[in-house]
Order: sequence, then C-alpha cells, then structure tokens
Amino acid sequence: MKIISSIEDMKNEMREFRCQNKTKGFVPTMGYLHEGHLSLVRECVKKSDYSVVSIFVNPAQFGPGEDFEDYPRDFQRDSEILRNEGVDCLFYPSNEEMYPQGYKTYVQVYDLKNKLCGRSRPHHFTGVCTVVLKLFHIVNPHQAFFGQKDFQQAVILKRMIRDLNLDVNLRVLPIVREEGGLAVSSRNTYLTPEQRKAALRLYQSLQEAQRMVDQGERKSQNIIQIMKKNIESEPEAQIDYIKIVDTENLDPLSELNQDALVALAVFIGKVRLIDNTIIKPEG
Amino acid sequence: MKIISSIEDMKNEMREFRCQNKTKGFVPTMGYLHEGHLSLVRECVKKSDYSVVSIFVNPAQFGPGEDFEDYPRDFQRDSEILRNEGVDCLFYPSNEEMYPQGYKTYVQVYDLKNKLCGRSRPHHFTGVCTVVLKLFHIVNPHQAFFGQKDFQQAVILKRMIRDLNLDVNLRVLPIVREEGGLAVSSRNTYLTPEQRKAALRLYQSLQEAQRMVDQGERKSQNIIQIMKKNIESEPEAQIDYIKIVDTENLDPLSELNQDALVALAVFIGKVRLIDNTIIKPEG
Repeated sequence: MKIISSIEDMKNEMREFRCQNKTKGFVPTMGYLHEGHLSLVRECVKKSDYSVVSIFVNPAQFGPGEDFEDYPRDFQRDSEILRNEGVDCLFYPSNEEMYPQGYKTYVQVYDLKNKLCGRSRPHHFTGVCTVVLKLFHIVNPHQAFFGQKDFQQAVILKRMIRDLNLDVNLRVLPIVREEGGLAVSSRNTYLTPEQRKAALRLYQSLQEAQRMVDQGERKSQNIIQIMKKNIESEPEAQIDYIKIVDTENLDPLSELNQDALVALAVFIGKVRLIDNTIIKPEG
Repeated sequence: MKIISSIEDMKNEMREFRCQNKTKGFVPTMGYLHEGHLSLVRECVKKSDYSVVSIFVNPAQFGPGEDFEDYPRDFQRDSEILRNEGVDCLFYPSNEEMYPQGYKTYVQVYDLKNKLCGRSRPHHFTGVCTVVLKLFHIVNPHQAFFGQKDFQQAVILKRMIRDLNLDVNLRVLPIVREEGGLAVSSRNTYLTPEQRKAALRLYQSLQEAQRMVDQGERKSQNIIQIMKKNIESEPEAQIDYIKIVDTENLDPLSELNQDALVALAVFIGKVRLIDNTIIKPEG
C-alpha cells in the first residue's frame, strides 16, 4: 500500500489510472477506523480495480467548541488495518496541505444543509461538501463509499455530485452495529461503560418506531412521541432532534405513507450521537 | 464544428480526449461574440489541439433587476463566427440543462466575492464560480481563457481553481478596445451614439491615472480624485466605484509602490460599464 501525503504526488499517482480501463474506488474517512469504515473499505476493495482511502480530520466540518482537537487519531493502527484489507493507496494530507494560507473557497448545498444535523451544526455540511469535492478532484474516483449512519451527508453529497456534474457514483452502505445495537462510531470511545449502556436507547427507539409502523401506526407525531418518551426516561440522554422526513429532500413527513427516514441525534453526557433507519411502510 | 447542447453528450464527447496526449482549450462565454471574445477564441484555437467554446447566458450571475432577460443573444451569428475561427466544439446548453429543478449547489470564494463589483452585485461571483466549476467538470479542459476586462472574475476563478485542486491553467488575455479606447463589451450595444462617446471617459480616466503615476504621483487618493473629476464632468456618467487595489487580494492600496489594479465601474445612462488597467510603478 502506498502512503501519500502531498496533493501533487497524489494527483500524479492517480493520473495513470484515468486512461486504463480500470475502476477506481474511494473511501474518505477521518481515521480511527472501526467496523463501519471497514465495511466500506471491504466493499471498495472488492468492487474496484484500484482502491484509495483517505484519512483527514477535516477542521472545516467542526464548529467552534466541537471536538476537532480531541477527535481520536491513531495513524499507525489505521494504516496497518488498511494494508491488511488490501487497500492500494492511502492519502493522508496535513491541514496545511488541504487548507493552505489564504484558502477561501466553500461549496454549499442550500436548504439541505440547514436541516436535521445542520440546525445544531450550521457549518458542518459546508465543511463536508468542500472537503469531499477537493478529495474528488484529487483522487478522481469512479465510485465513492459512504455509510448510511451519516444519511444526511449522503443525501447532500449526492445532490452536490448531480448539481456540479461530477462523474462519481456514490454508494451508501448499511449501518454497522455493535452487539446490543449501538451504531459504531469513532465517538463511541468517548463513552463511559455506563453511558454506552444508556446509548442503546437510540437504536431501541428506532426499533420501537419500526414496530409501531408494522402495527399500522402512520402518524409521525405519535411515533416521535413514543421514541421521545423512551429516550427521555434515560437520565444521561438529552435529545437534540428526532425527525421523520422524506428520504430525498429531508422535509418532515406528517404521515408515513411512503419510504421515510427516521433520524435522531442525542447527547449522552457530552457526546453527541446520531442514528437512523429507513422505514418502508407496507401497503 | 460540433454543436452539443446536452451535458451527457458533451461529457461523452470530451472523454475521448482525456487519454490522448492532446491539450484541450476552453473559452466560456455568454455569446453575442465581439472582438474581446475572439481574441480569446483565437488564442485557444492556436494553443490547443482541441478547442471548446461554450455559449450560456448564466442566470445565476445576474441579480434581480439586472439585464438577464434583455442580455443580447444571436446564436446563428455566434456559431458561424466560431466555425470560421476553427473551433472544434460548441457547447450550447439550455437553462434547464444547467440548472434543473431542485438545483441547490453553489460555490463561493469568500471575501474576494464582496469586493469591487461584488459590492453592487452581491450574488454575481457566486453565479460565476458555480457555472464555471460546472463547465470545467463537463468540458474538463487543460486550459481556459478569460479576458482582463473582468479582472476580478479572473482573480476569483484562479483562487477557486487553486483552492479546489482543479487541474486547469487559467490564461488571462488583454482588454480589446474600440477606436477611441472603449473596452469592447456585449453591453456596448445598449449605448446610444451619444452615450458611446460619453463612455470614452472610462478609458480616458485610466490613461490619466497612468500619466500621473508616470509623473511620480503615488498617492491613490490623489489619482482617484482626478479620475473622479474627469468622469463626473460628463453628465451621462454616474460612478459606481473607482478603486486602486492589490492585484491578488483586491485590498485597497493607499500608495502605488507595487503593481496595482486601477478598476472602475460607471453607469452611462442605465448601462453599467467596467474597465481597468494594471499600473506597474517604476523604481
């Protein structure tokens, strides 16, 4: 596995693959790899002739007071994992390489960026779109792999790709869960054993939503109320949002008569966790 | 010359050239071609193995109340001109093709977009950056040609190219002037013969600035004052701005001890005209 940290070197490396009839797959990450990332990496390696993973903790997608400084990092471990998975190239740029002095350009997907997580993280998706567009220009992949856990991110990036006429096929893979159902996340390392137990409420409430729909409930308001109750009975938990929305434009749905995204963000102590599920009501 | 109006067709056409060892040149225009455009087109044809021109009156770069509807258009004449110049491919998309329903993505180069022309046209450069980025993704050129008349546009696009890690060499060619010195512009067609005479004041005042610097004047304030007087003595003219700024960050310079951009925007009747010159003080 090649490890490259300069953009120029990366572009030169990537150029060779443009003109051969080979598919290039890409998994952008912020490192501290877990089973969620690995499900993306494995699919990428399997479905591409050449696979690229990036590790870059992107400062532009963290707000003031968020955990940019504390975000967990372990490059040695990450690079060994990726080597063992058969990844061909690891891109590992510095902040100065990605955002040199005088950097001024940002990409925004209007209105989608302000919904769900965008309400409490107003600059987050601008940072995500900007860094992903830069990485796409540098890596020039045919396909890129993202996790369903960041569902809003995937919706926004798909819109960006379409709007800006990029040639990248964005693939979204299912959420990977620990035993008990907690969605795996680099931020789970922040949790105490007790908080980790409290965090199970996120998935439990999503299961509850699915059960209610299976039993015929269609009113979003009723489903959200039960989910809320379930989570609020846990003293460590504080709800940021629980929403039931359209899977494409992320607008709230008052009734579940179509495929719907049930999404939530909950603080467990100081740790903000997200989770979601897509519910396809029958009949 | 091929004429293509679908993005998909254009991308397929362009793909063939990626992998041959040939340079592709690109001139994006809003049509109604004049000698200014033609200087870009000729350089592009001369310096590229394959030359692409686009004609698209980009609604996103016009503000409310500006001249999007009235902007002059003559596709028959334009396409004949380009054919005669030896252009290989003309891209001529519709608004719906470029901004389909649900379009949401915009690119901005912060702070540069609010200077000079950005003060009276707050969304203009967002529209320019967005359409140029889309066109770059569609055409995928090695080099693109722009005119110095839109100096701020060139500065902003260069910044965008660098920031977003694009592989396009942006070439800026000198302003083409009519006899008497008026910078050629599609908007000159709006002028009455009398207004056209009044419009000569723009270039005359730039020449005056150059003369003052040649004679040793270095204070921007003094130069701007004389330029202002020169233009204001013409009753048809109303100044939007006259500025002397750094050629890269567009910040005002109080003294001309380095290369400086002298730029101005002036309304002649209802027609807003821009012009500029770069002054390199000696010693």
